[in-house]
Amino acid sequence: MKIKVINPNTTWSMTEKIGEAARRAASAGTEIVAVSPQMGPVSIEGHYDEAFAAVGVIDEVRKGEAEGCDGYVIACFGDPGLLAAREIARGPVIGIAEAAMHAASLLGTGFSIVSMLERSRATMEHLVHAYGMERMCRSVRMTDLAVLELEEEGSGAQDRVIEQCRLALAEDHADVILLGCGGMSDLMARITREIGAPAIDGVSAGVRFVEALVGLRLGTSKRQGYAPPLPKPYVGAFAGFSPLPAGG
Amino acid sequence: MKIKVINPNTTWSMTEKIGEAARRAASAGTEIVAVSPQMGPVSIEGHYDEAFAAVGVIDEVRKGEAEGCDGYVIACFGDPGLLAAREIARGPVIGIAEAAMHAASLLGTGFSIVSMLERSRATMEHLVHAYGMERMCRSVRMTDLAVLELEEEGSGAQDRVIEQCRLALAEDHADVILLGCGGMSDLMARITREIGAPAIDGVSAGVRFVEALVGLRLGTSKRQGYAPPLPKPYVGAFAGFSPLPAGG
Amino acid sequence: MKIKVINPNTTWSMTEKIGEAARRAASAGTEIVAVSPQMGPVSIEGHYDEAFAAVGVIDEVRKGEAEGCDGYVIACFGDPGLLAAREIARGPVIGIAEAAMHAASLLGTGFSIVSMLERSRATMEHLVHAYGMERMCRSVRMTDLAVLELEEEGSGAQDRVIEQCRLALAEDHADVILLGCGGMSDLMARITREIGAPAIDGVSAGVRFVEALVGLRLGTSKRQGYAPPLPKPYVGAFAGFSPLPAGG
Amino acid sequence: MKIKVINPNTTWSMTEKIGEAARRAASAGTEIVAVSPQMGPVSIEGHYDEAFAAVGVIDEVRKGEAEGCDGYVIACFGDPGLLAAREIARGPVIGIAEAAMHAASLLGTGFSIVSMLERSRATMEHLVHAYGMERMCRSVRMTDLAVLELEEEGSGAQDRVIEQCRLALAEDHADVILLGCGGMSDLMARITREIGAPAIDGVSAGVRFVEALVGLRLGTSKRQGYAPPLPKPYVGAFAGFSPLPAGG
Amino acid sequence: MKIKVINPNTTWSMTEKIGEAARRAASAGTEIVAVSPQMGPVSIEGHYDEAFAAVGVIDEVRKGEAEGCDGYVIACFGDPGLLAAREIARGPVIGIAEAAMHAASLLGTGFSIVSMLERSRATMEHLVHAYGMERMCRSVRMTDLAVLELEEEGSGAQDRVIEQCRLALAEDHADVILLGCGGMSDLMARITREIGAPAIDGVSAGVRFVEALVGLRLGTSKRQGYAPPLPKPYVGAFAGFSPLPAGG
Amino acid sequence: MKIKVINPNTTWSMTEKIGEAARRAASAGTEIVAVSPQMGPVSIEGHYDEAFAAVGVIDEVRKGEAEGCDGYVIACFGDPGLLAAREIARGPVIGIAEAAMHAASLLGTGFSIVSMLERSRATMEHLVHAYGMERMCRSVRMTDLAVLELEEEGSGAQDRVIEQCRLALAEDHADVILLGCGGMSDLMARITREIGAPAIDGVSAGVRFVEALVGLRLGTSKRQGYAPPLPKPYVGAFAGFSPLPAGG
Repeated sequence: MKIKVINPNTTWSMTEKIGEAARRAASAGTEIVAVSPQMGPVSIEGHYDEAFAAVGVIDEVRKGEAEGCDGYVIACFGDPGLLAAREIARGPVIGIAEAAMHAASLLGTGFSIVSMLERSRATMEHLVHAYGMERMCRSVRMTDLAVLELEEEGSGAQDRVIEQCRLALAEDHADVILLGCGGMSDLMARITREIGAPAIDGVSAGVRFVEALVGLRLGTSKRQGYAPPLPKPYVGAFAGFSPLPAGG
Repeated sequence: MKIKVINPNTTWSMTEKIGEAARRAASAGTEIVAVSPQMGPVSIEGHYDEAFAAVGVIDEVRKGEAEGCDGYVIACFGDPGLLAAREIARGPVIGIAEAAMHAASLLGTGFSIVSMLERSRATMEHLVHAYGMERMCRSVRMTDLAVLELEEEGSGAQDRVIEQCRLALAEDHADVILLGCGGMSDLMARITREIGAPAIDGVSAGVRFVEALVGLRLGTSKRQGYAPPLPKPYVGAFAGFSPLPAGG
Repeated sequence: MKIKVINPNTTWSMTEKIGEAARRAASAGTEIVAVSPQMGPVSIEGHYDEAFAAVGVIDEVRKGEAEGCDGYVIACFGDPGLLAAREIARGPVIGIAEAAMHAASLLGTGFSIVSMLERSRATMEHLVHAYGMERMCRSVRMTDLAVLELEEEGSGAQDRVIEQCRLALAEDHADVILLGCGGMSDLMARITREIGAPAIDGVSAGVRFVEALVGLRLGTSKRQGYAPPLPKPYVGAFAGFSPLPAGG
Repeated sequence: MKIKVINPNTTWSMTEKIGEAARRAASAGTEIVAVSPQMGPVSIEGHYDEAFAAVGVIDEVRKGEAEGCDGYVIACFGDPGLLAAREIARGPVIGIAEAAMHAASLLGTGFSIVSMLERSRATMEHLVHAYGMERMCRSVRMTDLAVLELEEEGSGAQDRVIEQCRLALAEDHADVILLGCGGMSDLMARITREIGAPAIDGVSAGVRFVEALVGLRLGTSKRQGYAPPLPKPYVGAFAGFSPLPAGG
Repeated sequence: MKIKVINPNTTWSMTEKIGEAARRAASAGTEIVAVSPQMGPVSIEGHYDEAFAAVGVIDEVRKGEAEGCDGYVIACFGDPGLLAAREIARGPVIGIAEAAMHAASLLGTGFSIVSMLERSRATMEHLVHAYGMERMCRSVRMTDLAVLELEEEGSGAQDRVIEQCRLALAEDHADVILLGCGGMSDLMARITREIGAPAIDGVSAGVRFVEALVGLRLGTSKRQGYAPPLPKPYVGAFAGFSPLPAGG
Repeated sequence: MKIKVINPNTTWSMTEKIGEAARRAASAGTEIVAVSPQMGPVSIEGHYDEAFAAVGVIDEVRKGEAEGCDGYVIACFGDPGLLAAREIARGPVIGIAEAAMHAASLLGTGFSIVSMLERSRATMEHLVHAYGMERMCRSVRMTDLAVLELEEEGSGAQDRVIEQCRLALAEDHADVILLGCGGMSDLMARITREIGAPAIDGVSAGVRFVEALVGLRLGTSKRQGYAPPLPKPYVGAFAGFSPLPAGG
């Protein structure tokens, strides 16, 4: 089985970290291909960044279909491009926010999301809502760290993340923590151990859930909202992305 | 006051029709600039199309800020790029699905959306939900017309739209109809007259709502989720979209 | 265009202030008629007050229809009599709580209501709910001021309002403020400036939204719940309010 | 124990029928006082009618407090004036829609409301929603009968009501029926017997629930939203309703 | 009328206290039979305890049907076995959490539950949700007392309960308190008096609501989800509970 | 990895079929132990059956913990005993309704449940609601087959199931089907192929999801609602189930 893990931003050091987490999580026999798009923002911290990242994600899924990938994980906690990606993938496509929330709902009675910048609060809440997780979500806690600070050694960023995890358990009645950024994917085991409750990395959960569905020979349904894009011309810089077959 | 009305697809005949509807709706003294992006799909009929259209919308809002636009209407019933556009606009940005739903909630007890392809049902329902309109929405009725059929004379498309409007009133207990496609913006007066209930075109409503907010000197809040994009490098084909100032 | 702005309480000094705010908000060419009912409570601070105010509002809308009014704004943040008024008005009728909430949802990701007495909390929450704004509403903050204290110079009432606005931004993650009383309609510009985020007065927003809908030739739907009252006798002190035509 | 049952319309033949149902439902030792207001509409079929009926209900509760009533039932399925009445009553006040819905939720898995005119659908749905009964409510079925037709012998009105009850069980998966009009209060036993499922009359349920709460020495809470009206002047025709004590 | 009040745990001192509360609450002429199951946990503090208690409750309802009971109250604030009990009872079956929530919704604008161990928070919230009481519920406050501590004289347990009641009114905007444990049923009058707001014991409310429904000749609907169990064999230790008639 | 798949009813022919489906679904290296409880109903068709089945499930999980099981699947579409089982299991416990719903939400835009008897509709809807899947669930379709009819060759039961699956796609806008009974677990591949959309068997999905979580070293959180049962005596026939260690 070949799973493509797409870090939607273009910071390859983060892509490597995410790839390692994905490989650690994967079953024997699963090949992980971890990539970043060839265009787009170095980090995703808002809707504007996300809109460009979505195109990058789509580009990687298009290529992935040609490369024979069996499924995809979108490794940014805003799940950019998820629905569009499902239209062009035969296999399953899972976002890491989605994966983490579904995993949490199987393990506890309420989760807290610990993530980065306050400005993303509404986005996180929107996802919670879109996935039907309102009653599972006890709080969204922001560390006020920029995404790339997680990459800096000695920044104390990890400690601030763990502190918010502890507060979520103690004050918000959460019993599961969601690590709200692809860049936290190396912290799952450490935080789970330190706080005494499951801390879920969506990259790891996403890889395992894709494996599960592919293993059952289940792919994205092609009957309604995820049917393949209709063939039509695209113009200008996006002409190459047209769903119309070349020469069609 | 200068309002940019962005048809997110690249079919300029539709853009012209939308521009005319916008001008008909606008107050004296409002300048309407109706445009399509320079890149992207000729019609928007799914998430894949929408992802590319969103970048086109953003591009037009970026230019609009430099051109001194006071506000924006996104003239596709899926409201593509809306949240990202709000991050870069000082004034208000309104999608036509959003505008039509808010207008309907001020005029009736329940609306039905009459739109195009069955495959968009889930998208429409998602917007209904995101805008808090679940209790206002009585039904989503699809005509199974492709977007560009509305542009073809003699296709009978308008009659099929009107038939669904009548059924929504008679069978679904709706008392307001939302015209669920930018390409229907010329039908508002005719349908309102024929069915004996308000039929709302989101382009017209969007223009008027932008006027209303600009007239009150109210713009998009810059405190939380719609704060300006953080400066950062973008790479590859999207480098030119970086929020980082050139040479900054 | 002629818009009647109805202050549902009988304190004419407040009616004048509301009328001034309405005129400041209105477009050139809009005539504002600001009135209070001829009967009812001097302020509205509970359901009991509201029940009598509703009859006063209805009375003014009845007269307004005869006077050729094109639309109505109900200038009390509990929107008393709104649904009944819609049954007898041809044009649009908008309550200021409703107007402020819809405006806020077009400008930000979450609003807080800053209003008067704690006892009205449940009423405000009920409106938030009835209008589908649960996910937009971050908090309801009460100043514990009586409505008429806003009218007293040197009461410090305005400062207490502004303090709660600041707290709503800082602690509740709001990015838009709703001024939760018709008597605050003169504070919109000042508070918006001082707190650095949109502070929305429903009177101003209501006037502009009525203008928008009337400008589009859209009135209240007469198909279902807002159909005209059925002709029938009324007895006793309310006989004059019977929907039965005189001599009918 | 003395319970005042208020028929909010002014049709005394209906008041008598409601009074009889209330007496049939009441425990030994409970005195039922059935009244109509001295002013207002002869039937309640919309928000306009309801606004005037609410004042009539309030008037009767005011008098009831002076007469030593222990609790109140508001015998119109729109529950007009309920919240205002709670502000002035020491004991419990229950609307018949509310009573019927709560009773149904204790006896079945889903109810249907069978009521009169299509125009009231949105009002019924609003109550369902306000009382948290969305998941209990399987359907709202309208007979298209006017309220006063129920009073006419030989109108076939009862048969049409029963037909809709049967359809609600067979097609909507309901297992309890709510009789959605005070004028149906004499049909509870007959319909329950004929359809083989509980048909609940809110007048009967309301009387019993008031008895239950009074028996437990529980009255309306006076801490928040139902605190007594604040003393203040009322002007004009409503001066006599001022919460300010005469000469105060 | 004969009402069986089932304390689902096997601590008979608590059963006696519950029986006394039930008798105090009951109308003249109502016979209260207070029992505990013959098997199961001495207190119920989690789902595991609840699963066994449910079987005990069912056993008592089975016997109750043979004994001619007219209705049942399940006197544990988790309402264990409620839905199963309804399948085998002809009359009404009410849980005390359910009874208390419905009573509160008739008397105030928002309730707080004051209960025992933090670990039960999710269960309480689940019930709030299942009964449609999300908007009525202002908070769930836990005293961190074990159920049986309420039975110990001099434990200070009652004072801790009252302290949380006061905090719920002052900080959470509640105006009604629900006593969240069958073991608090003797505290209703005292707490209501001390805090100046209704404190509702579900045992008392449950008894009165069963009386109300039985008095109206209304029983559990047998049409859908509460239809009698289908006859079928049970094996092993539960063979005696088979719905199949002996020799059938 | 050792996963115990518990068929909560006592019909071993069904247990074998479920075991086969589980083994087909499982990864290489996973050991499936398929069991039925030693006591309880031969099929589960209501709350009464479910209450006894829950105890059987608990008994099997207790034994499973001693046997070194890594996780559990509860193979009845009502998920009986799920929450209690989580209190005593270290690893994950997943119900098949839960598993199927989560899988569906990763593959489509809306699912329909195709299941057995009409009387279970409310139970299914309750689960949909409890798992936050209201917006994903397009319909619940009942075949009116008894559970054990699925076991009878030549009953035509399978054809009736497939017919309802087709109708759900065609009329209810579903794009994924949930097989709403453990006894349908052998039909997943066939139905998926015949209807051209994913048909999900919860047994298969549950096994794979347990594998996924165990593979990530994630177990049930022990912090709040799923903390281990408190040690305490149980009396009578259930004494052996006491969480108190013998002699403890």
